[in-house]
Amino acid sequence: MPELNSQQWFTEIFAPSGSAFSLRTEQKLAEVQSPFQHIEIFKTTDFGNLMVIDGVIMLSTRDNFLYHEMLSHPVLFTHPDPQNVIIIGGGDCGTLREVLKHRSVQQVTQIDIDEQVTRMAERYFPELCASNQDPRATLLFADGIQYMRDAAPQSVDVVIVDSTDPIGPGEGLFNRAFYQSCFAALKPGGILVQQSESPLIHLQLLNDMRVAMHDAGFAELQTLQFPQMVYPSGWWTCTMARKAQGFDGFRREAAANPGFATEYYNADIHQASMALPNFMRRELKP
Amino acid sequence: MPELNSQQWFTEIFAPSGSAFSLRTEQKLAEVQSPFQHIEIFKTTDFGNLMVIDGVIMLSTRDNFLYHEMLSHPVLFTHPDPQNVIIIGGGDCGTLREVLKHRSVQQVTQIDIDEQVTRMAERYFPELCASNQDPRATLLFADGIQYMRDAAPQSVDVVIVDSTDPIGPGEGLFNRAFYQSCFAALKPGGILVQQSESPLIHLQLLNDMRVAMHDAGFAELQTLQFPQMVYPSGWWTCTMARKAQGFDGFRREAAANPGFATEYYNADIHQASMALPNFMRRELKP
Repeated sequence: MPELNSQQWFTEIFAPSGSAFSLRTEQKLAEVQSPFQHIEIFKTTDFGNLMVIDGVIMLSTRDNFLYHEMLSHPVLFTHPDPQNVIIIGGGDCGTLREVLKHRSVQQVTQIDIDEQVTRMAERYFPELCASNQDPRATLLFADGIQYMRDAAPQSVDVVIVDSTDPIGPGEGLFNRAFYQSCFAALKPGGILVQQSESPLIHLQLLNDMRVAMHDAGFAELQTLQFPQMVYPSGWWTCTMARKAQGFDGFRREAAANPGFATEYYNADIHQASMALPNFMRRELKP
Repeated sequence: MPELNSQQWFTEIFAPSGSAFSLRTEQKLAEVQSPFQHIEIFKTTDFGNLMVIDGVIMLSTRDNFLYHEMLSHPVLFTHPDPQNVIIIGGGDCGTLREVLKHRSVQQVTQIDIDEQVTRMAERYFPELCASNQDPRATLLFADGIQYMRDAAPQSVDVVIVDSTDPIGPGEGLFNRAFYQSCFAALKPGGILVQQSESPLIHLQLLNDMRVAMHDAGFAELQTLQFPQMVYPSGWWTCTMARKAQGFDGFRREAAANPGFATEYYNADIHQASMALPNFMRRELKP
């Protein structure tokens, strides 16, 4: 049976589901211990560069387009007129780049607790940082939980939570108190969207998130699914939570003629991502 | 960096994309060298039983529903009245079980070259073999390429190719000569469907298949996408090839009220699986 030499492969073991995923590496390009977490950058043989935080794969050059597009465009083509956007986390700046493709957006504030993530991204994923100098963008390195607690009431159209898993620095971004802060900061038609893990192996966590969003006051939830090779199971979700009722706001015409390029997202993919399998229809809460 | 002990993990290295996938195992339950291939069965800690052929993961108890449902129900709810179905490969009998859920189906003939695959499935995946005694089912252990070459012209409604990868025994199921045999055996409204690998890492192979299907005379092609955790990249496709033009035949009403249970498939998922990402729209041939 093959064994993976740790000199030539980076392996992430996902213990709770008894699975592991590996990419073949050529070399470790960088390694830094920030005040918050341990960040490593590898050069892989087939997926470009790879960022790993505390042993967990964050993104690769080759497949991050899936996640970044799906965390940005569905919510921005669901909100009727997104102007003021907040990104919590997102330090690699890939989500920021996608958000800034939307002309309606006038202001994006990104709050990542760890400046080192952005410094590493600037160097090893420069294409994701291509829009960091856009005058509409503000990059803050601060605590996103505190930032949302202090945000002016009803001041934001869209909050995107692009965080690590609910272990370590990301933990406080997956509970009712945080969602209540987001709810208060959103304008009446505002939408929160957050990455919400794998339908196949994290359904309990997804449900916990949905229940907490609902309990925080959000009127309607919509979980979207998409492929994401480098995350456990290769199948991922994000969940939109809308302050007022009604997800019938999908602006299909605008999505079909976005005026910018995407690799994965299009209007049909947006529609398709909302179709949920029978087992999810049966088991999703609330 | 973690290393995976081969006593506790089964690892499949997918060398062409520099990636690997592993499941944690409790024990090897069986191992047999058939005249055609090497078959192993493992008990995993979290995915039930695992079948591996020549070192390549075929299926797990936990996630095979995705693949088997998507190889069966879309094609059967696209054909207007599927009565006579042939399955090439499919020795684990999971596809057969799904096909037999359709009341319109009067006859299913499954031709797998390797009887040992079915014998292993009967023992270690008995739920997939639950319909093997259905009087509408015939299980043959023979060469599927020869079987299709000898099939009566215009005698079949649907051909499902549920094969291993195009290496080893499965190789001859991915070329124009085989597709010409299928074309000849299908009735005028007939449809061929075949698993067509990963959109992210096998696009060349997918295109080769599509070109060969087109060159064999098929009037219209439709590639569907779905998640499949245990296959390379976790993202998979199947491709339908229709003898006459027009895939507008999706029987949505019937799919929405199938009269049987599924875990993944439903009418919305069927529709969603046809939505292709921009990079596929751009690069798919012909």
